[in-house]
Amino acid sequence: MPVPRTIALDAMGGDHGPEVVVGGAALSLVRHPSLSFVLAGDETQIRAQLEKHPALAARSRIIHTDTVVAMHEKPSQALRRGKGTSMWLALEAVKSGEAHAAVSAGNTGALMAMSKLVLRPMAGIERPAIAALWPTVESECIVLDVGANIGASSRQLCDFALMGSAMARALFHVERPTVGLLNVGVEEIKGAEEVKEAHAWLKEASGLPLDYRGFVEGNEIGQGKVDVVVVEGFAGNIALKTAEGTARQIGQYLKAAMSRTWTSKLGAALARGGFRTLKEKMDPRRVNGGTFLGLNGIAVKSHGGTDALGFASAVDLGYEMAESDLVARLGNDLKAIQEKLKLASTTADIPRAAEG
Amino acid sequence: MPVPRTIALDAMGGDHGPEVVVGGAALSLVRHPSLSFVLAGDETQIRAQLEKHPALAARSRIIHTDTVVAMHEKPSQALRRGKGTSMWLALEAVKSGEAHAAVSAGNTGALMAMSKLVLRPMAGIERPAIAALWPTVESECIVLDVGANIGASSRQLCDFALMGSAMARALFHVERPTVGLLNVGVEEIKGAEEVKEAHAWLKEASGLPLDYRGFVEGNEIGQGKVDVVVVEGFAGNIALKTAEGTARQIGQYLKAAMSRTWTSKLGAALARGGFRTLKEKMDPRRVNGGTFLGLNGIAVKSHGGTDALGFASAVDLGYEMAESDLVARLGNDLKAIQEKLKLASTTADIPRAAEG
Repeated sequence: MPVPRTIALDAMGGDHGPEVVVGGAALSLVRHPSLSFVLAGDETQIRAQLEKHPALAARSRIIHTDTVVAMHEKPSQALRRGKGTSMWLALEAVKSGEAHAAVSAGNTGALMAMSKLVLRPMAGIERPAIAALWPTVESECIVLDVGANIGASSRQLCDFALMGSAMARALFHVERPTVGLLNVGVEEIKGAEEVKEAHAWLKEASGLPLDYRGFVEGNEIGQGKVDVVVVEGFAGNIALKTAEGTARQIGQYLKAAMSRTWTSKLGAALARGGFRTLKEKMDPRRVNGGTFLGLNGIAVKSHGGTDALGFASAVDLGYEMAESDLVARLGNDLKAIQEKLKLASTTADIPRAAEG
Repeated sequence: MPVPRTIALDAMGGDHGPEVVVGGAALSLVRHPSLSFVLAGDETQIRAQLEKHPALAARSRIIHTDTVVAMHEKPSQALRRGKGTSMWLALEAVKSGEAHAAVSAGNTGALMAMSKLVLRPMAGIERPAIAALWPTVESECIVLDVGANIGASSRQLCDFALMGSAMARALFHVERPTVGLLNVGVEEIKGAEEVKEAHAWLKEASGLPLDYRGFVEGNEIGQGKVDVVVVEGFAGNIALKTAEGTARQIGQYLKAAMSRTWTSKLGAALARGGFRTLKEKMDPRRVNGGTFLGLNGIAVKSHGGTDALGFASAVDLGYEMAESDLVARLGNDLKAIQEKLKLASTTADIPRAAEG
């Protein structure tokens, strides 16, 4: 029997607020009937939505608040007046131990800043990262950092490898996930010293709970070459957005191509089952949710503009990571590695020592 | 009447050597009958291919050499023994003025290093960049740098904006191309100071031969939001490869989806005209060719594995840039801007002064 898990929801986050959040939670509850929820936000609005979902209402507790982080508020501003907002209260529920993960469709920058402040980075982690689930030809992979920070030292890249591996174990149920460092193909190019250093360290390190496979290039992410792709946040965010944009663009081409002639139209009508499969495969709602990794608790960011189906994916993601004891396991991995580093601290090629 | 232009070809470059190079040149000659060619490489092999294309043979001069840069040679190695290779001789033909552009499908790193050495960076340009043509929903845009260097100062990003604009004028025939700086969406994120500085400068600068439109994100490249997208080479290369990979991945999904049921298969057969349009639209050979910008001469890199059709696109690209007097015009733009900067050199917000 699964351990009962509770998910804390920022009921006011996102473009559509409680309607999508409550609707999404109801969908996720069907898939995971042992779940309970804490909903932070305007009680009247939340109750109105819960009336449509009695099963969810029976497993939900509301924490009322009037204050909300606006979608376009600057993170620093949101932080100053953040205490008591629906976002803050959802994170507090994780901190207090009542909930096992928080999910918000609100302002990304604010959520990141607040998560760091409320949940705090794990011991040994300098920088939390945002991990994205990335659809691949066969299934999915994890890409991080997709925008928590710009730039990363070699040590931070190594931490990302560990954090991503912990998430891969939780979601893909493999003991030693394969890991690659995102790099450019040109040899002997100047720069990216951090990437080279992280590569050297990951290649040499033994006993890590991951299977390091070396460099991967941008075109290999979607081919599913590795379970975890590690990159600093600027290039990672650009890669993620570029892939989304390319998928949308090809969808537009396809639509135009299929309405060019009446035979194309007829063919497209006949093949609509196939197109539906394709659409489902490419549906960004299937893998909705960036996860903040490296904190003492799980925080999932859903797309702000998503619908109930998309929000449910983000809730599922929070559930699966809570279910796998991600934070505790990652903590153990980090401790083991730090022990190893202490033992090895006389050698010079360890990024933890080399870092600037 | 067009001025007669000559293109120098590295006949031995690429995975297929003279067969593809000569075949591609023949295709391009049909489109641009005033072209002449200089072909550097093994005379016997080149002659054998030219026999199949008498019209091309009549407009070609062969520079014989036995030495070739290997596809996987390190750039430093290639440089040491580079003089006299087919790649080197093609670039020399541009330097000497005999040819107006060089095209090679050979080793990217070696071509970049040799181009810099033979053609030299233009006065006022610190760093050449590789520009890629990127298919957009409506047409194409230019993205640079896609991998000549890793990292770029604010000044270098501003130079890229000018270089990309010169190329856009040559290819898209617009006087003031629209330009955007690739950035991540999260506000107040630390880092990417160079991008912010370049943004401030481009926003303030008046009289530039371009129309600066501010930041763009990865998903906006393919939507054709601007003519020129400026980014440092690590993120630029990853974006380009990621887009290629995503297009390939969706092609695989589509194929699988269309062969799932017999109605899908029948529909796909009926819609094959539409699929052909899509395939043509997505054909990477249509926009084959990375261009080295910022040198005293034009050098185009074709994909190594391409066929004659793809190589012809790279030759066309070289032709169009030669035709537009890209190098001379860019030189004038740079001179004008340097004059302006001299006049403005008492102000503090100029990246040329701020750079580290």
